[in-house]
Amino acid sequence: MAASVLKRNNVNQLGDGKQTIIFAHGFGSDQSAWRHQVAAFAPNFRIVLFDHVGAGQSDFSAYSPRRYSSLYSYAEDLLDLCAELKLKQAVLVAHSVSGMASLLAALVEPDRFSQLVFISASPRYLNDAGYFGGFEQADLDALYAAMASNYYAWASGFAPIVMGNPDKPELALEFAKTLAQIRPDIAQAVARVIFQSDHRAELGRLNIPTVILQSNNDIAVPPQVGQYLADHIPSGRLVPIAAEGHLPHLSAPETVTQAIAACLAT
Amino acid sequence: MAASVLKRNNVNQLGDGKQTIIFAHGFGSDQSAWRHQVAAFAPNFRIVLFDHVGAGQSDFSAYSPRRYSSLYSYAEDLLDLCAELKLKQAVLVAHSVSGMASLLAALVEPDRFSQLVFISASPRYLNDAGYFGGFEQADLDALYAAMASNYYAWASGFAPIVMGNPDKPELALEFAKTLAQIRPDIAQAVARVIFQSDHRAELGRLNIPTVILQSNNDIAVPPQVGQYLADHIPSGRLVPIAAEGHLPHLSAPETVTQAIAACLAT
Repeated sequence: MAASVLKRNNVNQLGDGKQTIIFAHGFGSDQSAWRHQVAAFAPNFRIVLFDHVGAGQSDFSAYSPRRYSSLYSYAEDLLDLCAELKLKQAVLVAHSVSGMASLLAALVEPDRFSQLVFISASPRYLNDAGYFGGFEQADLDALYAAMASNYYAWASGFAPIVMGNPDKPELALEFAKTLAQIRPDIAQAVARVIFQSDHRAELGRLNIPTVILQSNNDIAVPPQVGQYLADHIPSGRLVPIAAEGHLPHLSAPETVTQAIAACLAT
Repeated sequence: MAASVLKRNNVNQLGDGKQTIIFAHGFGSDQSAWRHQVAAFAPNFRIVLFDHVGAGQSDFSAYSPRRYSSLYSYAEDLLDLCAELKLKQAVLVAHSVSGMASLLAALVEPDRFSQLVFISASPRYLNDAGYFGGFEQADLDALYAAMASNYYAWASGFAPIVMGNPDKPELALEFAKTLAQIRPDIAQAVARVIFQSDHRAELGRLNIPTVILQSNNDIAVPPQVGQYLADHIPSGRLVPIAAEGHLPHLSAPETVTQAIAACLAT
């Protein structure tokens, strides 16, 4: 079990320092997306990187729709990793879906984490009465249908919309490439689990300081969502960043690195 | 893995027949609670019984708060069991928390089930705007505090309230006994997971005929909840039964058996 967690999630450790930073990637991405932040923090921090099951170099045989029918399983995997590495009071930097997986993990074993940093996280993507998540069910159904029709064509169209920053097309190409590396059946199942999720009710139970980094023109996370997180997480603090799109750690790496560094300094 | 599922969940099979009925027990109970229905259906049906991890004769070493931080894990276990026994189109009779675990399982692998029968199920125990679940957070916090203070005293006081039927005190004593057999730390963690759960948003996605048996004076499930389930599950049908309390399969066994038989006949 112990060794298999590290293999299952392709866990990599580097850097020096007493304080550990865990970087948790989002959908369609993998641990390589953190390379700018790793370069910046490895000299002074212990860095833990991993790929979620079904992504990157994780053990794909560990994936099943049954096992990963909710974000709780990703939270459990993250806690398995923390237990195996005996992590306590780690800083957890979580992009996109990893934000809510981190929340769920922190609710179960709060002592593992001293600080959460959410980048482009959302507790619910669907609009609801009194809540603007950015998507109607019809939008999502169309997205699922497009993924099912031709996954690779969908990925090349979806990547630039999500990445933003049309003046730097190489960014969208990179994201399209990691998207296309996911097995299409897994990508479709995972997209449904993410986009249909709703963890608003659990925000109020998080008692760990949480910084919510909110970029501009994020197609998946409108500014109202960042505000909602800050309003409903008791120790939540919204930090707008001068960045655009859903993957600012790739598109505005220095801005994100500085924002994380500011969190670590406080 | 395969053999361990049957051991983990203490799976027992009996009876004859082409149609399989799975009985899934609720909190504080175990598969022995189905003995009246088993006696009635075993002559004509294949019966599958099991104990949830943490209950009855399940493998307690498989329990951890990390693994069972949500009802999705119970759903996954149930689907593991179905896969191991190669079940298709089974009838699933689910008491209390097993109702929502069954819903979650059926959303992931609908072909496993032809019919769900909920007994005293609830998608949310906490009251909310426009929703009456029966409990305020302060009620639940008091319940958790009582469980933490003296678990065995709590169990003996909780059992008669939940069972109802004060004219048959032996019923409450039986429930108090199975409650007291749970490890107190597990009982407390599981109670929180159940009582804080909210699966209302998933009801509308269930496409399997579902009968909702609703008894009277059920402290955990007021009549509004049964109506809510029927209103929000597309193929849901509310069937009030002439029974009292949260465990009618024990307190009014013939009534519940007849209601299940009526479901099987249609």
